Amino acid sequence: RLTASMEDYIEMIYRLSVKSGYTRVNDLAEKLNVQPPSVTKMMQKLHEKGLLDYQKYGMIHLTSEGIRLGKYFLERHNIVKEFLAILGANDNLQKDVEGIEHFLSWSNYQILAAFLQYLKENQDFIENFAQYRNRWLAEEV
Amino acid sequence: RLTASMEDYIEMIYRLSVKSGYTRVNDLAEKLNVQPPSVTKMMQKLHEKGLLDYQKYGMIHLTSEGIRLGKYFLERHNIVKEFLAILGANDNLQKDVEGIEHFLSWSNYQILAAFLQYLKENQDFIENFAQYRNRWLAEEV
Ligand SMILES: [Mn+2]
Ligand SMILES: [Mn+2]
Repeated sequence: RLTASMEDYIEMIYRLSVKSGYTRVNDLAEKLNVQPPSVTKMMQKLHEKGLLDYQKYGMIHLTSEGIRLGKYFLERHNIVKEFLAILGANDNLQKDVEGIEHFLSWSNYQILAAFLQYLKENQDFIENFAQYRNRWLAEEV
Repeated sequence: RLTASMEDYIEMIYRLSVKSGYTRVNDLAEKLNVQPPSVTKMMQKLHEKGLLDYQKYGMIHLTSEGIRLGKYFLERHNIVKEFLAILGANDNLQKDVEGIEHFLSWSNYQILAAFLQYLKENQDFIENFAQYRNRWLAEEV
């Protein structure tokens, strides 16, 4: 099992390396807002889990299992974010996604992904909800 | 700010004391599957935050702010759970709820609560989704 932090690393490495096939410790440190030695330490752990290869302060390549997971974590992130956004979430969107994503299991990710697609195919339902939501929020206050 | 563990404590104290107005360290320890000394330690922290009054190994009473939060945490738990359940989630339902709930901000909780109510008022939409979901899951595998 991976920790939330490990999932964030794999997701970001996948984002950064999807075009070129690799990323670097320094780029990763900058994007995740951590110090390079912390990145190097995590690279060792993720290497031991068979998810990537790396050279100290050098290039990082995901293994095929790392790519599979990175693709999934990025998709899961986007599904949770798009789902909240389609409901009209605005405040706390990024913050909530960064927490929730790690606690959505594979089985429930699949259901949410299906539901998001179903919502997108029913734009009128979403548009009517926008009005319903505004009335609801006005009453709650 | 409260930690996820503090939120779980307040939610459970609220559940246990909603009828009688109080609960006890031993009941709480049993329900949360922790040792009584851990409960006592946490009671001290939550007392310092003004959320409850307690006597060592004795009765625990939520303050009015503790009651307000406990009611909210229990509702938030139920909204997340009902929402996933209405989509057909079954596997991992309890586990996912116990994680996700802590990362849903107040603003997005309100939106999800409104959306759940809206879904309940559109049973045909949910019934059609059940078929859509089953086709989707069959294709994904
Ligand atoms: Mn993320
Ligand atoms: Mn809970």
